[in-house]
Amino acid sequence: MNEVILQEVGLRDGLQAEKQTVPFEHKLAWVEALIESGVDVIQLGSFVNPEKVPQMADTDKLFQRFSQPGAKPPRVRLSGLVLNEKGLDRGQACGVELFCMGVSASETHSQKNTGMTVADAATRIIQMARAAMAAGREVQVSVQSAFGCGFEGAIPETRVLDLVKRYLDAGVRMVSLADTAGHANPAQVERLFGEIRTMGAGIQMAAHFHNTYGMGLANCMAAMRAGATYLESAFGGLGGCPFTKLPAGNVCTEDLVHMLQQLGQRPEVDLAGLIGLAKEVAAFFNRELPGFVYKSGPIKH
Amino acid sequence: MNEVILQEVGLRDGLQAEKQTVPFEHKLAWVEALIESGVDVIQLGSFVNPEKVPQMADTDKLFQRFSQPGAKPPRVRLSGLVLNEKGLDRGQACGVELFCMGVSASETHSQKNTGMTVADAATRIIQMARAAMAAGREVQVSVQSAFGCGFEGAIPETRVLDLVKRYLDAGVRMVSLADTAGHANPAQVERLFGEIRTMGAGIQMAAHFHNTYGMGLANCMAAMRAGATYLESAFGGLGGCPFTKLPAGNVCTEDLVHMLQQLGQRPEVDLAGLIGLAKEVAAFFNRELPGFVYKSGPIKH
Repeated sequence: MNEVILQEVGLRDGLQAEKQTVPFEHKLAWVEALIESGVDVIQLGSFVNPEKVPQMADTDKLFQRFSQPGAKPPRVRLSGLVLNEKGLDRGQACGVELFCMGVSASETHSQKNTGMTVADAATRIIQMARAAMAAGREVQVSVQSAFGCGFEGAIPETRVLDLVKRYLDAGVRMVSLADTAGHANPAQVERLFGEIRTMGAGIQMAAHFHNTYGMGLANCMAAMRAGATYLESAFGGLGGCPFTKLPAGNVCTEDLVHMLQQLGQRPEVDLAGLIGLAKEVAAFFNRELPGFVYKSGPIKH
Repeated sequence: MNEVILQEVGLRDGLQAEKQTVPFEHKLAWVEALIESGVDVIQLGSFVNPEKVPQMADTDKLFQRFSQPGAKPPRVRLSGLVLNEKGLDRGQACGVELFCMGVSASETHSQKNTGMTVADAATRIIQMARAAMAAGREVQVSVQSAFGCGFEGAIPETRVLDLVKRYLDAGVRMVSLADTAGHANPAQVERLFGEIRTMGAGIQMAAHFHNTYGMGLANCMAAMRAGATYLESAFGGLGGCPFTKLPAGNVCTEDLVHMLQQLGQRPEVDLAGLIGLAKEVAAFFNRELPGFVYKSGPIKH
C-alpha cells in the first residue's frame, strides 16, 4: 500500500457544525499543534459568507498568519475549501496552497447546496479549477455524496465516474471522493477508487469519510487498498452535529494515525501530540468527542 | 468473500463485565430476540464459578430452557464457553451444541487466568476438545491474546501459529483467534488468518475482535478477506468496562450486520430486530452503549 498523505480537515469540516465559535487564538494554537504533529496538509477553513457561517469568519486571517515566512515548514501545505469564484479570489489573495472544491453527485444535494444541476455545478467548478491551476495552485476536485445521499439514497456509480472523467479531461490530477452522508462501505470504496485508478496515469486519489455507522477506518483501509493516497480526517472525530447523540463525525485523525502506525506507516507522526490536541479540543467543547484513542491511549508494545 | 456466520457473544463476553446482574427473565427475552433475528450461533454464557461471576450463574438454566424441543429452530446453534473439565461436564449435561474453549498466547495472561504455562494450558484444553468431539459436540478452540497482550505487548506470530498447529494436529477443525486486548490491526489479521488457511484443508476460522481503538469493523473486513467465516460480536457493542469511559467493547452485532448487508451479505437477518434489542439493552443498563447503528439507524436506500 502507498504511504498515506494526511489531510487534517478538523478546522473546517470538524468545526463548521459547531455552534460555539472557536476564538482565533485557540485556532492558532490548534494549527500550531497540527504543524508540530507532522500531518501533511492542514485545511484551515472554507471561504464562505462569514455572516452565514461565523465559525469560518477568520479563515482569511488564519491563512495570512500561516503564510508568513517561517510560520510553518514548507512540507506542511495549507488547504482551503472554496465554493465559488469569490471564495477562489479570497483564497488566492491570502495564501491557499491547495484549493479544494467539489460537486455533489446527488441532484437534490446539488440543488439544495448550489441551486444548480450537477452538470451545471460541474461546469462552474471545472472553470474554477482551471483558473486556480493556471494561477499555479494545487487543486483537488471532489465528488460529494459519492457513496450515497441522505436525500436521494443510493447514487449510481456511473454518475460519480462521469464527474471524475470530466475533472480529468479538464486536467485535474487530484480527485477526491467524499462520503458526505457517511454511506460508504468498504466494497463500494474499493470498487470506485479502483475504477478511477484505471482512468489515467498520475491520478492522485483522496478519500473523505465520516464514521456515522462505524465503518470509517474500514473504509480508509479499502481506499488505501485501491490506491488512494490522501486520507482526510478531523481531530477528535469532530464533525457530528453537536445537538444529537449521533456519532456522525469525520474519521478521527488520531485514530487513523494510530491505525497507520500499527500498520507500520508514518511512524514519525507525533501521535501523542495529536492525542493532546484532541483532549484540548474536548475540553474546549466540554464534551466527549467520538475519537477512541484519545480516550484509550495508544496500544503499548 | 465467504458468507459470514454470525456468533453472538453478548450474553457472555458482553455481560460478564457488567456489575448489574441481568435477571433470568430479561436474558430469556434477549435470547428470544436473537433467535428471531436470524443470527446463527448464540453464546448463552460461560461455565464458571457462579460465586465468582454471578452474571453467569444461570448459564446451565438458560441452556436447559433453549435445548427443549421447539425452543429454537435447528439452524440456530447454542454455544458455551468452558474453561475446565468441570465446565465441560456441566455443558454436556445441559445441551451445549458448540463448545468454545481456548488458550492464551501470552504467558503472563495464561498464568494469571489459569496458573499454567501456555504449553500446559494447551495440553489440557486439547484433551477437553478431544473429549467433547468424542461426545459428538462441535468444538471451537481459540487462541486468546492472539494479536497482542495488555500485559506483554506484542505476541510473536509463531507462538500463535504453533498453538493453532497443535489444535489442528489434535483433530480440531474450527479455530478462533481472539483479540482479547483489542490490539489487532487489519494487516496483522489478514496475515495470521492467511497463514492458518494454508495449514490444512477444511479449516473453519473464527475471529473475535474488540473495538477498543475503533478498528473493529476494519479487522472484520480483513478477517473475511483472509477466509474467516465465523465473526463474533455482541449486541450494542457491550463488553467494555462499565466504570470507565473506555469504549473497549466487542465488535457490535448490529453494526457488523449493517456493514454486511451494505456489502450484500446476509440480507435475511433482521437488522431492525437487532437494533430494537440494542435499544432494550441500553435502556436496561440506563446508559449509552458503544454501538453506532442503534443510535443512527441504518442507511436508507
